[in-house]
Amino acid sequence: MAEFSIEAIDDVIHGRVRLGVMAYLVNAEVAGFNELKSALQVTQGNLSVHLRKLEEAGFVGIEKSFLGRKPHTQIRMTSAGREAFRAYLEALDRLIKSASR
Amino acid sequence: MAEFSIEAIDDVIHGRVRLGVMAYLVNAEVAGFNELKSALQVTQGNLSVHLRKLEEAGFVGIEKSFLGRKPHTQIRMTSAGREAFRAYLEALDRLIKSASR
Repeated sequence: MAEFSIEAIDDVIHGRVRLGVMAYLVNAEVAGFNELKSALQVTQGNLSVHLRKLEEAGFVGIEKSFLGRKPHTQIRMTSAGREAFRAYLEALDRLIKSASR
Repeated sequence: MAEFSIEAIDDVIHGRVRLGVMAYLVNAEVAGFNELKSALQVTQGNLSVHLRKLEEAGFVGIEKSFLGRKPHTQIRMTSAGREAFRAYLEALDRLIKSASR
């Protein structure tokens, strides 16, 4: 079972909140912090922690700016993130397909 | 985005080792402890912890017996486990599909 590998599944992406972020951004390209927070139904602190982990991996970029006086944070998927997400989905697919032979 | 829900993804199954166990068993129905350990490339302690969690959730049954004098542990997927795995895959699929619209 050469294809059966849990190691091939990137743990940085696999975490449920981070998977949600990546799945959201793969389509949206860019999302506001509050938009993500409400889509994922997580707390601000929880989302921040996971975004930092994705940022450290180079999978998302975080841009802070102001809209008038209000701080505004936008999260964007990087091309490395897009590539990693594609590889993640393939690894997941292989795991499940190789198991269901 | 009603379909976009990370909550729908069962955390008991989502953990990488447990996902590997479930993916393996959904096809094999039953597997020996050492067979699983080698397929997943995890340590005995690590596998034991995750099997206990799956057993507590009612997703696998663990049968201990002896082959001659050697202890032999077999792990079997329960019908509740099969149903939960099916629901898990559907939730994952929805998350990714609803995100990629």
